[in-house]
Amino acid sequence: MTSEAPTRAYRRLSVEERRSQLLDAALSLFAVRAPEDVSLDDVAETAGVSRPLVYRYFPGGKQQLYEAALRSAAEELEHCFAEPPDGPLTRRLSNALDRYLAFVDQHDAGFSALLQGGSVVETSRTTAIVDGVRRAAAEHILSHLHVSHPDISDPAVEEPSPRLRMTVRMWITSVEAASLIWLDEEKEPPLDELRDWLVEQFVACLVATAARDAPTEAVVRAAIALEPADGPMGSLARRVLPVVSDAAHLL
Amino acid sequence: MTSEAPTRAYRRLSVEERRSQLLDAALSLFAVRAPEDVSLDDVAETAGVSRPLVYRYFPGGKQQLYEAALRSAAEELEHCFAEPPDGPLTRRLSNALDRYLAFVDQHDAGFSALLQGGSVVETSRTTAIVDGVRRAAAEHILSHLHVSHPDISDPAVEEPSPRLRMTVRMWITSVEAASLIWLDEEKEPPLDELRDWLVEQFVACLVATAARDAPTEAVVRAAIALEPADGPMGSLARRVLPVVSDAAHLL
Repeated sequence: MTSEAPTRAYRRLSVEERRSQLLDAALSLFAVRAPEDVSLDDVAETAGVSRPLVYRYFPGGKQQLYEAALRSAAEELEHCFAEPPDGPLTRRLSNALDRYLAFVDQHDAGFSALLQGGSVVETSRTTAIVDGVRRAAAEHILSHLHVSHPDISDPAVEEPSPRLRMTVRMWITSVEAASLIWLDEEKEPPLDELRDWLVEQFVACLVATAARDAPTEAVVRAAIALEPADGPMGSLARRVLPVVSDAAHLL
Repeated sequence: MTSEAPTRAYRRLSVEERRSQLLDAALSLFAVRAPEDVSLDDVAETAGVSRPLVYRYFPGGKQQLYEAALRSAAEELEHCFAEPPDGPLTRRLSNALDRYLAFVDQHDAGFSALLQGGSVVETSRTTAIVDGVRRAAAEHILSHLHVSHPDISDPAVEEPSPRLRMTVRMWITSVEAASLIWLDEEKEPPLDELRDWLVEQFVACLVATAARDAPTEAVVRAAIALEPADGPMGSLARRVLPVVSDAAHLL
């Protein structure tokens, strides 16, 4: 454990490289253990450096290291939702979810500890970082829900309606919940299936909101126009029809 | 502030009555202020008793009082979701949501502080209490999602499928998110509208899950059979049709 550490500590890394090495080591530990079970000694050992070196970079100790690691993870997580505004909406959402779910898969215990709350390292600052990620994800998704269909150009829908905004934020929260349940249930169902189902849940929520909110209806109509029959929305539509086949008395 | 307190402190209340009076006073304060801005002096003043009396009942101080108040609120909240298993599913859900949203409306700041996390009084114990409410709400709702339609009797659907369970838990989380946004946005839209929309979101999520989960499909078919045309599901169906009228290319 200690024989190698001093040698490796003297490898010439720049300040930024060293900092990033320590954050990676911390993240890899927070990914498999609760924050309260990770010590600075563990981080030093994983990074192959001395404990004083960790303290030199993070004089505030574990709390500071945790918050820095969290900030670094938050940046990575925010990037998951950046997606070019081309192609069918469901394909863009699938791409973003693929990256998000890979992040969840990789950060595992750290992701759970963070979102489940009540952890010893949780403070109003860490909560603010997590809220920041939620807000950024919502803004990314909302930026795809502009009406860009040439037949519809109502300036009123440029700014998302409160109802559309609320729908997106609710879906993001439910994706978080699904991720936690998924980690808790030994990563079942497989990632691809979970992703497709979450996309379908989004489509369903969006359509239900469109049924009482004209700006959302414009967004849904524009999105439908871009969807191919062999895409997720077509597949969902064909599977929903038999489910509601006995609903004629409701129409 | 103090002239009345000693007199009122000597009113003869039983231990249980006194405890409950102190909890009510605490809850009314936590409802309008962040937990860190509520002192035991405030609680004593609101209850019209002396500070030592508050300490006699809650020797652990504010943290103990907060947890006791939270437990009392959690019990009340769990009752919101208890609903007899009669009539259309959407009516039962509307009733439960009416009670839940009235609770949110009434407990306001305390509800926000609790769920937004990072509060000084938040511990793994308070998190566990909140998780208990979520679990209880999910079980209540799942108990209504049995297949009781006479034409369908598959014992396999007696126990909710993992996908159905996940759908319900996701919806509960998204209702929480909606409640927080609603409090944050000066209680807009009106409660009735929010309730109807949340019911519609539930129906949409359930139908989307039914499209890939046979046990959920059985639940949805049984629910549809009990819904009247003038109920929320009929209203939703009629408003969704025009939204998806241009989706013929997907079928």
